Amino acid sequence: MKKKILVIGIGAGNPEHVTVQAINALNEAKVFFVLDKGEAAEDLVRLREEICARYIRNSDYRVVKAVNPPRDRADRDYLSAVDRWHHDRATLYQQLIQDELQDGECGAFLVWGDPSLYDSTLRILDQVLANGVVDFDCEVIPGISSPQALAAAHRMPLNRIGEPVRFTTGRRISEEIGDVSGSSVVFLDDGTALTAIADQDLEIYWGAYLGTPEEMLVSGRLPEVAGEIAEKRLKARQERGWIMDLYLLRRSRPQ
Amino acid sequence: MKKKILVIGIGAGNPEHVTVQAINALNEAKVFFVLDKGEAAEDLVRLREEICARYIRNSDYRVVKAVNPPRDRADRDYLSAVDRWHHDRATLYQQLIQDELQDGECGAFLVWGDPSLYDSTLRILDQVLANGVVDFDCEVIPGISSPQALAAAHRMPLNRIGEPVRFTTGRRISEEIGDVSGSSVVFLDDGTALTAIADQDLEIYWGAYLGTPEEMLVSGRLPEVAGEIAEKRLKARQERGWIMDLYLLRRSRPQ
Ligand SMILES: C[S@@+](CC[C@H](N)C(=O)[O-])C[C@H]1O[C@@H](n2cnc3c(N)ncnc32)[C@H](O)[C@@H]1O
Ligand SMILES: C[S@@+](CC[C@H](N)C(=O)[O-])C[C@H]1O[C@@H](n2cnc3c(N)ncnc32)[C@H](O)[C@@H]1O
Repeated sequence: MKKKILVIGIGAGNPEHVTVQAINALNEAKVFFVLDKGEAAEDLVRLREEICARYIRNSDYRVVKAVNPPRDRADRDYLSAVDRWHHDRATLYQQLIQDELQDGECGAFLVWGDPSLYDSTLRILDQVLANGVVDFDCEVIPGISSPQALAAAHRMPLNRIGEPVRFTTGRRISEEIGDVSGSSVVFLDDGTALTAIADQDLEIYWGAYLGTPEEMLVSGRLPEVAGEIAEKRLKARQERGWIMDLYLLRRSRPQ
Repeated sequence: MKKKILVIGIGAGNPEHVTVQAINALNEAKVFFVLDKGEAAEDLVRLREEICARYIRNSDYRVVKAVNPPRDRADRDYLSAVDRWHHDRATLYQQLIQDELQDGECGAFLVWGDPSLYDSTLRILDQVLANGVVDFDCEVIPGISSPQALAAAHRMPLNRIGEPVRFTTGRRISEEIGDVSGSSVVFLDDGTALTAIADQDLEIYWGAYLGTPEEMLVSGRLPEVAGEIAEKRLKARQERGWIMDLYLLRRSRPQ
């Protein structure tokens, strides 16, 4: 009787993003692993708890909380810092699966948005399996991602006709934006990247706290709205203590 | 009392991809517009009917079927052919909304996967609104898209650490593949594009009929598995009369 791990995408903020497949998976799991994640942790853990309470029909499940090892943000080599961080997390996950899950039992990680986008859970579970100490089956349940929530809120497609869309990060966008073809969705920008490119002739569709009652949206020509976005961002971040935002950029079309 | 149009993403093949938000939207709509779409039409219409039957609690809704005007595939200017096609569809949608939906009533379009990716429903509704003949409110409900179904089936993230992901089409991939950074997800390839790049040193993760009982998966180094994919693709297409497949490509990492 192998252990089983479900990696469940829970959507990007709206508890009604949850799919029927995810609800079934939530009801299959007996142990939920909840890992603390920095500043936004409290609100994000609350959404997970709300989802469990709302969709799990039976209360015979256990929640196991643990604290994610911190990433070394002083390390200037991004990849090696992330590598070490993953290694530490793999050690923790391995321990949790070994200690907290009986043979034949089913455990779950609830992943924000979709597990396939800028989330390390799958990579870490792969590393745990590669270590060869614990064995388990793994199943992935997709969830609504933040770019989809952004597109739905702005009622727009991500791609223009026949054009590509790129998903990328704040860390990369300023060098990539020279590439004029298509649209770029930018994750994980703390505001610096957008400020750096604020004078470029681009269209922007920005959203924060998407899918939640606090959702904020701004769109327009970047040079005209960059100031408004920076202000709203700063204010919201100060009020709530954290912010999650992302945006789509594309070159304005010649008329 | 304005008319209301819901554009509902229904997921990429598995009826359990449907979200709670989509189920609520399905139950709000009184008229469903079902537009015929070529070869795969029959099976795809069947999934839509299955979803309606399974999730709608009340049977006081109407299904309005219509035939999408065909696209002129002989036109060598892709963009202008698509433009004309959209124009014809906007005329049809406008007629449907005008004739089939009372003031204050709620109608719905069920969109395959997510409405934000390589789907023209939103663009066409924008054009209908711009025509100024009928007026309505429009709401978009995101759905699980095929790249998410692909990633979940292969239990992998779409992006490598810190790298971008591009969503693109068969029509473009052979010129884009020279760009070595990151991963590319290729939609709408009839097999030609993949054959044309089959000798390149890439990793591929391929999937067809994702989320359905007929799901097929192949992964590996492209030069080694391209033949197998082409064969499976051809055979499946002959047996069912249509195929829907997509794949992710990335450069193999230097060891
Ligand atoms: C570590 S990534 C995780 C992405 C997630 N797996 C997904 O599918 O959306 C976190 C980033 O996603 C974006 N994000 C996630 N949820 C969001 C939301 N509700 N509103 C705005 N941005 C969001 C932000 O750019 C944030 O920095
Ligand atoms: C017109 S696009 C629509 C995409 C859709 N809006 C989405 O979110 O996935 C159709 C293309 O999506 C891909 N696709 C959609 N559903 C799929 C499935 N179940 N299995 C494999 N490919 C699929 C194929 O590449 C197909 O050519």
